[in-house]
Amino acid sequence: MSASLKTIEGTPDVAALMRDIGRRARAAARVLALAPAEQKNRALKAMAGALRADRGAILAANGEDIAEAKAASANAAFLDRLTLNDKAIEAMAAGLETIAALKDPVGAVMESWTRPNGMTIERVRVPLGVIGIIYESRPNVTADAAALALKAGNAVILRGGSESLGSARAIHAALTKGLREAGLPEDATQIVPTRDRAAVGAMLTGLDGTLDVIVPRGGKGLVGRVQAEARVPVFAHLEGVCHVYVHQAADLEMAKEIVLNAKMRRTGVCGAAETLLVDKAAAETHLKPLVAMLLNAGCEVRGDKATQAADKQVKPATEEDWSTEYLDAVIAAKTVDGLEDAVAHIERYGSHHTDAIVTNDAKAAETFMREVDSAIVLHNASTQFADGGEFGFGAEIGIATGRMHARGPVGVEQLTTFKYRVRGSGQIRP
Amino acid sequence: MSASLKTIEGTPDVAALMRDIGRRARAAARVLALAPAEQKNRALKAMAGALRADRGAILAANGEDIAEAKAASANAAFLDRLTLNDKAIEAMAAGLETIAALKDPVGAVMESWTRPNGMTIERVRVPLGVIGIIYESRPNVTADAAALALKAGNAVILRGGSESLGSARAIHAALTKGLREAGLPEDATQIVPTRDRAAVGAMLTGLDGTLDVIVPRGGKGLVGRVQAEARVPVFAHLEGVCHVYVHQAADLEMAKEIVLNAKMRRTGVCGAAETLLVDKAAAETHLKPLVAMLLNAGCEVRGDKATQAADKQVKPATEEDWSTEYLDAVIAAKTVDGLEDAVAHIERYGSHHTDAIVTNDAKAAETFMREVDSAIVLHNASTQFADGGEFGFGAEIGIATGRMHARGPVGVEQLTTFKYRVRGSGQIRP
Repeated sequence: MSASLKTIEGTPDVAALMRDIGRRARAAARVLALAPAEQKNRALKAMAGALRADRGAILAANGEDIAEAKAASANAAFLDRLTLNDKAIEAMAAGLETIAALKDPVGAVMESWTRPNGMTIERVRVPLGVIGIIYESRPNVTADAAALALKAGNAVILRGGSESLGSARAIHAALTKGLREAGLPEDATQIVPTRDRAAVGAMLTGLDGTLDVIVPRGGKGLVGRVQAEARVPVFAHLEGVCHVYVHQAADLEMAKEIVLNAKMRRTGVCGAAETLLVDKAAAETHLKPLVAMLLNAGCEVRGDKATQAADKQVKPATEEDWSTEYLDAVIAAKTVDGLEDAVAHIERYGSHHTDAIVTNDAKAAETFMREVDSAIVLHNASTQFADGGEFGFGAEIGIATGRMHARGPVGVEQLTTFKYRVRGSGQIRP
Repeated sequence: MSASLKTIEGTPDVAALMRDIGRRARAAARVLALAPAEQKNRALKAMAGALRADRGAILAANGEDIAEAKAASANAAFLDRLTLNDKAIEAMAAGLETIAALKDPVGAVMESWTRPNGMTIERVRVPLGVIGIIYESRPNVTADAAALALKAGNAVILRGGSESLGSARAIHAALTKGLREAGLPEDATQIVPTRDRAAVGAMLTGLDGTLDVIVPRGGKGLVGRVQAEARVPVFAHLEGVCHVYVHQAADLEMAKEIVLNAKMRRTGVCGAAETLLVDKAAAETHLKPLVAMLLNAGCEVRGDKATQAADKQVKPATEEDWSTEYLDAVIAAKTVDGLEDAVAHIERYGSHHTDAIVTNDAKAAETFMREVDSAIVLHNASTQFADGGEFGFGAEIGIATGRMHARGPVGVEQLTTFKYRVRGSGQIRP
């Protein structure tokens, strides 16, 4: 543990510390909400510069975190997520510049209309307020999440993983320099300076009404706990059990490309396909070559009887497989009795995240996209497009499967709310 | 207590009853989400017809409720809210027809764009899911809330006040006939058939993830409890401490009309003004005649020193008055040191509901509308326009001061969410 943290770890009253952080965030949010786009962008660019300038300090802090994690016998995947290098720091800095270049959502008029009495009404975007980010070992979330929140005019309270606190604090120090350089309050971007887990509990209760939303970034354990315990709204997805449904009218070559990409491009992302559904009528023409292709690509296939019949290497699927997010080179495969059966399977076992149909039958595609109740539904495209960048949002803070406010990729617009501005000329209500 | 209720009151396991209601609502929501506009409108019109046809039964049930309430020594205001008559039933029926005539929000494309790779992305409105309504003595909420939820393709679970349960059940019986006539599932609109308060507790926990949102309709006690205890999102406002700020550049005649209307048109609505702010510089020219007008209209005025100096009848205001929602012919009045002072007062004491400025200075008006962080801000118009009907929404289920999803008047569009439909031609992610 670094020397600077020791005194903070000794803080006797985490509740008081968190209340103070909340109070300061609320005050900063008020300033940020009224800050011009130019000033916020200046801060983001200055943050990028400070990250680059502070590279040595950030890598040194990261080195300490890594040494501690190794001493605590952390596994390789964990160390990989924790480790920063020159490239990672440059990526963070470039990310901030990308966000600076995005259109400012605050003040945008979403709709406007005139009433019969002559009043005009505008619905205009305003910041959400104070956003809490609870994340795990990846220190770069510190910069990415803070920047997106800032762009939308929000204050942010960052609570990183215990193991990456040193790295996160070094990154946060650079962000603070950027705020200062642009004349914005330093409290706009605060980091929880203690490893005490009571700090997370305080955030989940909303810090006496201070937090407007919490965004958890991390594994299923973290997200599940936040969803279960938070007393404030949460933007998150617990898991992505994504389906590709190959309809009998699918073009085989297109189906092969999409299934391979959806499953194997990156197996660890939430938009990776976990289940392949194929029409029974296309078992010979489509299922067989798709299964062969997947096996050939090194993907384990767990299937129903018909899929097992397609290839000896297919293992039997259990009931549990239909709702499993493997995040690995494994896929569950099942034959279905046409469109309605496919939709019923997805509604029963899916996670309402992202699901695709491959077909040349336009009517079947429209029915699928209407009836599947997921944040993202696709026709003839890979589920791996489930990403704010791919949607053209410029950056995202995550993907939400909740139904309130934000759904699908959560970009800068989803971190705003709105108010109504009414302009009259003396109108009174009859 | 009516005979039909006795057996239900005897239900030993309210938790099991509520779970069953939730399960059936979820299944009905799926059907409703895919129901065509025409079918939903047919149901709404048939409901209106059934309400008119069942008038006798509804009034009889209401008579029983009233007799019980009288026996329990309910006060006059309570009895007034509870009482139905021919006019009230016709108003409910006409309300359903108004909602039937509204545009169907489901399926509307909110935005669409094409990505560089040729994929098109659409953001399209879909129903929220299952809406819980917890209300008090007004039996007509049963029809109003159910109809608005149905129009947006949602299932609804209605929990009315204990004292109006007989009336609410009679109204609900008519709504069920309408659903049946249109071939929609009767479970789309369910009423909690027990007075047991444990049913409310079950709804506040979300019925095992079934409820997507709760809308409380009633007094501050009910709304406060729901906001404090609900584990699901809530659309509500706790109170409306609305301000009219008369700027020194205000036209006096316009200010008089707006202040009188904002305070006195109806004193019991959430958009009624509770505090008058007047620039110190306009104490002689504006404050004095405004106070005289209010007193003359029968409104009690509680003011700061300067307001007390304007008229002997002004009573001294205490600190508490600045944050009090009177819902009565009483107003708090204060002089302020210009625009920034007015905004600071509203931010400190207001409830982020609805606030107005009266001025002929366009720049001051824009600053006010930008800086006041309320759901509705008005320039030169009465705060009593805070109403979904007045906004042109056709009908509203209430006004929300939360920042998530719905803010301001909650109409049929705010009872929907969205999903993304992506159309490709074989795109895979690089």
